[in-house]
Amino acid sequence: MAVEPEVVLLDFWVSPFGQRCRIALEEKGVPYEYREQDVLNCKGELLLRSNPVHKTIPVLLHAGRAICESFVIVHTYVDEAWPDAAPLLPRDDPYARAEARFWADYIDKKIYGCQTRLWKLKGEAQEQAKKDLTEVLKTLESELGDKPYFAGDTFGFVDIALVPFTSWFLAYEKLGGFSIEEHCPKIVAWAKLWRERESVAKALTDPDKVEFVQFLQTKFGPM
Amino acid sequence: MAVEPEVVLLDFWVSPFGQRCRIALEEKGVPYEYREQDVLNCKGELLLRSNPVHKTIPVLLHAGRAICESFVIVHTYVDEAWPDAAPLLPRDDPYARAEARFWADYIDKKIYGCQTRLWKLKGEAQEQAKKDLTEVLKTLESELGDKPYFAGDTFGFVDIALVPFTSWFLAYEKLGGFSIEEHCPKIVAWAKLWRERESVAKALTDPDKVEFVQFLQTKFGPM
Repeated sequence: MAVEPEVVLLDFWVSPFGQRCRIALEEKGVPYEYREQDVLNCKGELLLRSNPVHKTIPVLLHAGRAICESFVIVHTYVDEAWPDAAPLLPRDDPYARAEARFWADYIDKKIYGCQTRLWKLKGEAQEQAKKDLTEVLKTLESELGDKPYFAGDTFGFVDIALVPFTSWFLAYEKLGGFSIEEHCPKIVAWAKLWRERESVAKALTDPDKVEFVQFLQTKFGPM
Repeated sequence: MAVEPEVVLLDFWVSPFGQRCRIALEEKGVPYEYREQDVLNCKGELLLRSNPVHKTIPVLLHAGRAICESFVIVHTYVDEAWPDAAPLLPRDDPYARAEARFWADYIDKKIYGCQTRLWKLKGEAQEQAKKDLTEVLKTLESELGDKPYFAGDTFGFVDIALVPFTSWFLAYEKLGGFSIEEHCPKIVAWAKLWRERESVAKALTDPDKVEFVQFLQTKFGPM
């Protein structure tokens, strides 16, 4: 009888939310089995059973128990279930932990919405989405300052929250006809550097996603 | 010279997000100064300086440092900065912590949006909001089961996340012309019971908020 692996990740190749989990597991050195899910056409029985509330990836299965939602997986579970290797959040400093959580939430609340509006909408609404995305990235640039990572000298939770989104920049620049680098050179430089980090390079896909975004546009928009 | 209190909460009386923080501080027995903010008309300099990103309440000031966003305040900061009294999340059990975080996020993502649509919209869109709210509450009812609290035998993070919203039920029932209790008797019974808990009773306001919602409708909608 096949032995079920201890750690399994239900994921979808291009998802920034799933990529966060892959980077976190890689940073921790946790071996896991990656299982690609057909989220666009036919969700599998294991995914629906493991995440009956949201019915979406990523789902981490650890010893048969399911943990859902990327921040819950990375922040609340992976960092605490494997505490010894590569802490993703500062230990014993509630203020620093709160700061990291605040910025990760900011990334979640702002970037995904801007990016979706950018490829779904046209004309003035698309212009607004470009402006909003630039503003959000400028705010993040100002928080990053001259530090190598958001938390200072250690790659951590906020970096993991943001870096997957940066692999979409090229596609959005092509589709929106604008340059992110022109407005936010620091974030683009930061992204270029850390996309080469081993854990990140393994998780992220080719930044040229125009074809995939065009497929999304055909399936779900533009509106 | 007046001595600045160690803990200050910038808040707005009727905010469920602010109320979460008040309940958490009360559960922990942390003395604090409550400072009402005029968020609808004129945001004060201290609020804008303390939360320059979102420019909104609640903000917790602890020894002069600002912590923003209700879940960051309750989950990441208050529970960890005052760890000894009344733990709001289970200690040393990453899976139980992840479960609590998952359900709190579910409450945040779903309930506020449904309730806002319920008072902002009319006709079919309002009917849909009533249906969605009922579905969300049924999902929470099923998670609660026959336990007294979401985590089992201890009042904690998920209870704090949800209970402030329940003090709006009466207003929404009146405005929407429907009964939440008819569809979700368990959550209503749970809410009635825990609204009497000392920390909750102190934080929550009179459930009859029809006048305040009518004021919101005049100011921001219905659309």
